[in-house]
Amino acid sequence: MHFASDNWAGAHPKIAENLNKHASGFASAYGTSDLDRAVEKTFSEIFERDVAVFFVGTGTAANSLAQASIVRPGGITFAHREAHMIADEAGAPGFFANGARVQAVDGPTGHIAIDNLKAAMNGFPKGHVHAGQPMSVSITQSTESGTIYELADIAAISAICKENGLPLHMDGARFANALVSLGCSPAEMTWKQGVDILSFGGTKNGCWCAEALVFMNPEQAKQLPYIRMRSAQNFSKSRFIAAQFEAYFADGLWLETAAHANAKAAELAKLISNSNDLRLAWQPRANEVFAIMKKQTSAKLQAAGAVFYDWHTPHAEKSLVAEDETITRFVTSFATTSAEISRFGDLIA
Amino acid sequence: MHFASDNWAGAHPKIAENLNKHASGFASAYGTSDLDRAVEKTFSEIFERDVAVFFVGTGTAANSLAQASIVRPGGITFAHREAHMIADEAGAPGFFANGARVQAVDGPTGHIAIDNLKAAMNGFPKGHVHAGQPMSVSITQSTESGTIYELADIAAISAICKENGLPLHMDGARFANALVSLGCSPAEMTWKQGVDILSFGGTKNGCWCAEALVFMNPEQAKQLPYIRMRSAQNFSKSRFIAAQFEAYFADGLWLETAAHANAKAAELAKLISNSNDLRLAWQPRANEVFAIMKKQTSAKLQAAGAVFYDWHTPHAEKSLVAEDETITRFVTSFATTSAEISRFGDLIA
Amino acid sequence: MHFASDNWAGAHPKIAENLNKHASGFASAYGTSDLDRAVEKTFSEIFERDVAVFFVGTGTAANSLAQASIVRPGGITFAHREAHMIADEAGAPGFFANGARVQAVDGPTGHIAIDNLKAAMNGFPKGHVHAGQPMSVSITQSTESGTIYELADIAAISAICKENGLPLHMDGARFANALVSLGCSPAEMTWKQGVDILSFGGTKNGCWCAEALVFMNPEQAKQLPYIRMRSAQNFSKSRFIAAQFEAYFADGLWLETAAHANAKAAELAKLISNSNDLRLAWQPRANEVFAIMKKQTSAKLQAAGAVFYDWHTPHAEKSLVAEDETITRFVTSFATTSAEISRFGDLIA
Amino acid sequence: MHFASDNWAGAHPKIAENLNKHASGFASAYGTSDLDRAVEKTFSEIFERDVAVFFVGTGTAANSLAQASIVRPGGITFAHREAHMIADEAGAPGFFANGARVQAVDGPTGHIAIDNLKAAMNGFPKGHVHAGQPMSVSITQSTESGTIYELADIAAISAICKENGLPLHMDGARFANALVSLGCSPAEMTWKQGVDILSFGGTKNGCWCAEALVFMNPEQAKQLPYIRMRSAQNFSKSRFIAAQFEAYFADGLWLETAAHANAKAAELAKLISNSNDLRLAWQPRANEVFAIMKKQTSAKLQAAGAVFYDWHTPHAEKSLVAEDETITRFVTSFATTSAEISRFGDLIA
Repeated sequence: MHFASDNWAGAHPKIAENLNKHASGFASAYGTSDLDRAVEKTFSEIFERDVAVFFVGTGTAANSLAQASIVRPGGITFAHREAHMIADEAGAPGFFANGARVQAVDGPTGHIAIDNLKAAMNGFPKGHVHAGQPMSVSITQSTESGTIYELADIAAISAICKENGLPLHMDGARFANALVSLGCSPAEMTWKQGVDILSFGGTKNGCWCAEALVFMNPEQAKQLPYIRMRSAQNFSKSRFIAAQFEAYFADGLWLETAAHANAKAAELAKLISNSNDLRLAWQPRANEVFAIMKKQTSAKLQAAGAVFYDWHTPHAEKSLVAEDETITRFVTSFATTSAEISRFGDLIA
Repeated sequence: MHFASDNWAGAHPKIAENLNKHASGFASAYGTSDLDRAVEKTFSEIFERDVAVFFVGTGTAANSLAQASIVRPGGITFAHREAHMIADEAGAPGFFANGARVQAVDGPTGHIAIDNLKAAMNGFPKGHVHAGQPMSVSITQSTESGTIYELADIAAISAICKENGLPLHMDGARFANALVSLGCSPAEMTWKQGVDILSFGGTKNGCWCAEALVFMNPEQAKQLPYIRMRSAQNFSKSRFIAAQFEAYFADGLWLETAAHANAKAAELAKLISNSNDLRLAWQPRANEVFAIMKKQTSAKLQAAGAVFYDWHTPHAEKSLVAEDETITRFVTSFATTSAEISRFGDLIA
Repeated sequence: MHFASDNWAGAHPKIAENLNKHASGFASAYGTSDLDRAVEKTFSEIFERDVAVFFVGTGTAANSLAQASIVRPGGITFAHREAHMIADEAGAPGFFANGARVQAVDGPTGHIAIDNLKAAMNGFPKGHVHAGQPMSVSITQSTESGTIYELADIAAISAICKENGLPLHMDGARFANALVSLGCSPAEMTWKQGVDILSFGGTKNGCWCAEALVFMNPEQAKQLPYIRMRSAQNFSKSRFIAAQFEAYFADGLWLETAAHANAKAAELAKLISNSNDLRLAWQPRANEVFAIMKKQTSAKLQAAGAVFYDWHTPHAEKSLVAEDETITRFVTSFATTSAEISRFGDLIA
Repeated sequence: MHFASDNWAGAHPKIAENLNKHASGFASAYGTSDLDRAVEKTFSEIFERDVAVFFVGTGTAANSLAQASIVRPGGITFAHREAHMIADEAGAPGFFANGARVQAVDGPTGHIAIDNLKAAMNGFPKGHVHAGQPMSVSITQSTESGTIYELADIAAISAICKENGLPLHMDGARFANALVSLGCSPAEMTWKQGVDILSFGGTKNGCWCAEALVFMNPEQAKQLPYIRMRSAQNFSKSRFIAAQFEAYFADGLWLETAAHANAKAAELAKLISNSNDLRLAWQPRANEVFAIMKKQTSAKLQAAGAVFYDWHTPHAEKSLVAEDETITRFVTSFATTSAEISRFGDLIA
């Protein structure tokens, strides 16, 4: 019963197979091979416009290099308090962006609340050098709480960015999960709503190590080749990242694996909401399910072999969880099986 | 006839196979899996002492995180002018080490000359804050010129480091090639001669993406987990780097692939020294061969399908190359075949 | 009626005079002159122990170099949300400390609340590299709200620091104002309560540009000479900073000017609390007075020639201020005259 | 006999007097006072165009913030090997410019040699990310060797910059000395030859702490207010830097003090070239004189009370100095007296 994280899963067989297929032979290094070029082209097709694509090794790298590409002195990026960039990257975005800061904005279930965003920005009036200056907004899709920004939500945040001359970044570590949940196209979920830069994640959805930084406007990516090299993210045998993405996109594998993970999360959520001892913290929309239960229940389930995390209660949801309770996180992936789900169902029944 | 670089080769079949083998199943992330731990232990066995090991994605990352771990304000690391850290990493070591500088020291065929090293250090007398302060020395083994530091050479540089209280770093992007060339043990080539920190490369010798930062004294690595995380080099599915190293070390594969590459380089060197139109720039000791020839000869060979680079003439070897000549670099790898070598031999005969 | 800031005042006549006195003659540069040494010794006398002192040009520099001296990768310094380091330095502390972060901790009237501090630290359990690691705590004395940490408050925060192996920094931009308010010695207000590093401000209290970074334990300052040089804060004619401090300390001038400023603030506070239209936001303890009034009152007073700022309402005091009201800040200094105070008294009577 | 450095001198009486004059009264802080604005306007008059001016505290700050304003990832600035930015700032330019590097270019008597500059740039072909990318050229006027770039020299370097799309920076720590030596206007010595950014020094020429960063094209300075704040160089009582510059420029004081220093250097040079035991290393053009003498002669002169430095022999002048000789540096200033010169003349006669 592996629900700790989608990055505990391995590599999807088709991705493993394609890595194998490209293992032999010679190819020019550092992202210049034919395969690299071909996969870059696939990205443009998927996003229905010419995008600039940079393969990197980790999601933290994608997010941090995005920050480095838009850096302003004294700059502030606004992100949800639960954002990976704030909570899980040990300060990498600030490090790569020369001390620029990521400021937490609150809002329910992992979403930046528009009013909070406006209030946060108001703390940085134009020309008030002491405070610093706004630099960008970053949203996470699907969110760290397993929910989704609706297209209109993204457009609303983008409108604020446009008003303030700020780029909009999307941390898409679980991009595919959000996409299949919304049932829209990659273009619709990004640049058509005003997203400028995307951290496109493959690792959590079946690759072993495949992340891409996608610039909707290649003009804005002109320094990225140097940023990536200086950031130690230019892989000599880059073709192997390309090979993962090739398989990832072939025959819509990525959508299939994401849909599978989401479906398993929905099954899990159903079992939880039917349980007497557990309840859903909120309705999941992607592949992460948050449940509230007594602390002793959590301990008992874990002792019985269910692998999941006692989570911290998000700032905006403090009131949901009683003193003797804990909020817990369950993550499904392409590798989650129905057998695991039903075993867990039996446990909590 | 692929002699452009050892990173144009793919992954060795046994490494590809082991990646495949570990593709399924669940394992805890970010370097905490059993496989990670087991491979870390293998490193300690290979180095005959308890070492601290950190898997990273690129050689530039290994070198740069080494710099970050020894950083001093106003710090200067001394390295050969041809060192990867100076010539090929777009300033990553200085970036990761907060603006610390890597100062070029000259010497023949890729080796730091002891006298030049001493002279360079003399430019930073203790307490003269304006100049900055020495921070470390870094040597490359095998060197960027395809030569080798003898054990006594390493010991001599280490002695200078000790006198000055500086750590000694070794860039071992081609560690195995040097090791089999010297025929000594990893311990002998490193800490027994005073090496403190090692960038241990697997990628150029048959892995697709496997580099490790090795601290001979784990006490000196206490900040490394945070440095690695903040540097975006903590891979979630780290087990796949571990899996590569597992196969790399199994049954001495790494020594076999390095010995193969070196042997092919020796064959190539022999052909070159027998040729009328080409001559060896200097005697190769590992898997890189530098040859001098007329510029038009180089162009003709490349047109005929030999893939290699016209190189820049190193500072210390300017006098070797005439105006109408070029120095060229040929790199062999685990994947270089005898057929390729003899085809090239036919070309230059 | 100049109440905008204590840094709108000029230089105290005795400090100006001493600058003049030292204008002629030759002295060795970069902090090595006899005068520099003598004033450094005065610091040790004032603090009743051998301290290491570094003159710098701005308070932001003192704070930021303090951060640089204690930097840890992925590091987090905890400071009050209103702290200068967070609100007024455009990210300088993070920039100088290589991307380390300063995390806001809330608490009433500019004080870090102990419980909030503990809760904030709990977000960074040992070894959880994703979050980063605690690096230091910084308190501001007097606070940005014109209040004071009692000695016991400082000791309580220091105890938490000690438990967690963290240095305690004090931003003493208004050190003298706090000191005379508490009526204790510099030693009592700092190292006797566990303060390790002090940003000692002279500028706001009558100097034109004199700030010092004081390390209670000189061993911890060994890298500071290089940090200061690399940070562009090593003044060639450093003797002129020393000259300011010489006059500042002579015959207790610094305590006199601070006592004057505090007394004027108290007079102002009394007038405000007697007024029908204004009320004190909270009781001032140093040289800053915060008053609440109708927005139109504030505008009227400013139009009548009173120079002060409409302030933002601190997070912890949101409930104090009604919708149609504003919180305002009045700062007094060595140069504030009784005439100005009574003119303002007439205005609000 | 004070010839150690021009920064051993104090403040010119007229500058000290003006500091005094502005000591009283209130003025808005952080560079917004009327005096700040007025002096900024003076800069525009002096440079015969609207320039953007930023007051900072040290020459290192001016140089480093210039670098920060033009920073490119993987960037390389080319400067003479003897440049302050390389030799005397403990790596500050790289630190402020996020790890960008300053690469040494050789040439005689402190001048960048055009051929060497071109060769150095050729090491960074467009798009070769591994090497990094050119970012700017920086020249020092007067040079660190006390010589001068002729206007045509500056234009020649600027032409190379233009060809390569690089800004040209001038380190003008001794700007006035060069200016009076050439007898041209500030405009002619800067933007009319293609200089884009100038570190304008006042400290070495009679101020106690007054440096300015001057952008010939204010459009290129838009981020500077934030860069300066984040770099801890925004002085609250900035008016005191402005006050120094006000006096510096009034009635051409700055040209007078520089002319005085240069004249004293010329006298010194004449005495040296007439001496039997000393000889000029090269002809001085500003206020620094380099002399070659036996090591024992240098020791004897210093023992007799002459304060000057045994210098390192610049790379390009190694052949000038015999084994038993030393090159020595003598610096004159506004405060150098004829009496000191003749006393030294007597010593070496």
